[in-house]
Amino acid sequence: MRVVVPFGTHDPKTRLSPILDADERAAFSRVMLTDVLAALANTVADPTVLATAPLDIDVDVPVTVDDRPLTTAVNAAVAGATTPVAVVMADLPLVTPAALSRLFETGGDVVLVPGRAGGTNAIVSRHPDFRTDYHGTSFLDHLAVVREIGASVGVVDSYRLSTDVDEPADLVEVLLHGEGEAGAWLREQGVRIDRSGDRVGIARDD
Amino acid sequence: MRVVVPFGTHDPKTRLSPILDADERAAFSRVMLTDVLAALANTVADPTVLATAPLDIDVDVPVTVDDRPLTTAVNAAVAGATTPVAVVMADLPLVTPAALSRLFETGGDVVLVPGRAGGTNAIVSRHPDFRTDYHGTSFLDHLAVVREIGASVGVVDSYRLSTDVDEPADLVEVLLHGEGEAGAWLREQGVRIDRSGDRVGIARDD
Repeated sequence: MRVVVPFGTHDPKTRLSPILDADERAAFSRVMLTDVLAALANTVADPTVLATAPLDIDVDVPVTVDDRPLTTAVNAAVAGATTPVAVVMADLPLVTPAALSRLFETGGDVVLVPGRAGGTNAIVSRHPDFRTDYHGTSFLDHLAVVREIGASVGVVDSYRLSTDVDEPADLVEVLLHGEGEAGAWLREQGVRIDRSGDRVGIARDD
Repeated sequence: MRVVVPFGTHDPKTRLSPILDADERAAFSRVMLTDVLAALANTVADPTVLATAPLDIDVDVPVTVDDRPLTTAVNAAVAGATTPVAVVMADLPLVTPAALSRLFETGGDVVLVPGRAGGTNAIVSRHPDFRTDYHGTSFLDHLAVVREIGASVGVVDSYRLSTDVDEPADLVEVLLHGEGEAGAWLREQGVRIDRSGDRVGIARDD
């Protein structure tokens, strides 16, 4: 299955600033991308990275550069497609081949995976009229598009696919449940789980 | 399958205090419990509520009162069991019969479902030596117990089962994806999704 992995190269993951500086956030976003591509490599996926600028790391898959806004660039890949096409976000370091295979095997003209806080972490479109819309609560917007075009919908219930990394609290999930390189990378930077407070949090040793 | 649903009656969900007062938190925790029991009713589950004090609402299932700490009370139900027994938390208002059935059907001497921030939202034990430990990062502790007793483990990958409600941000998930009464209850109190900021949050109309 054709799979598009959008990747924003410029100043990624700003909400991780309390834990990681700009260079570290750039590096970490690339480690997460690498984890997603490694998991995809063990599925039926035929992935392409859709990057906003040329990548400064080597990846084993084709890279398309498109500096337009996310929704526009993804729609150029999705619109009018006559074969199934998937969109998988690059900030999903918990994904495994099993979770991704479940996504690709779920039935429906359009398959959606919710992200935390109303996002959409992954999509499979088997309908030429489907369009993406990544503003605001995109999950609801995507459901509305599905209804509008009279398509059927499948929703995948996966903690691994639904856990996108935006905030320091999300790093707890990566450290506890990540099976790729992102958790190891965080540990190398001294980022660790902090059990000293009332609730489990994130701390950093310098 | 025998299913224990632990429920703390006293001052529940204190971390929701920025949005709900004490009476509202007590009411909301009971609505969530009701949602969990309603979903269980459409599965193979034979549920019992394990409450720290007599319940002040009617439920259609047996209630056992045990005022000991959570881990002690649950272990009294789990330890030495010669038939499978499950533990499902009461603060999982996104659960559906499908997600719960996936839990009950997953193989392994012990089946675990991670919660956010290191918790364990649900367990199936088919091993008489398994013991629960709900302090701190209980998911890791439960994995350690599994190793110690030489049991096999299954892990269920479910966003619905992994989403426990502790903080205001978790209410976004309930409002967007809940299929029971908890979302409707929140809306009745004026709790709504707030799209005005950079990220999707929670607001309340008074």
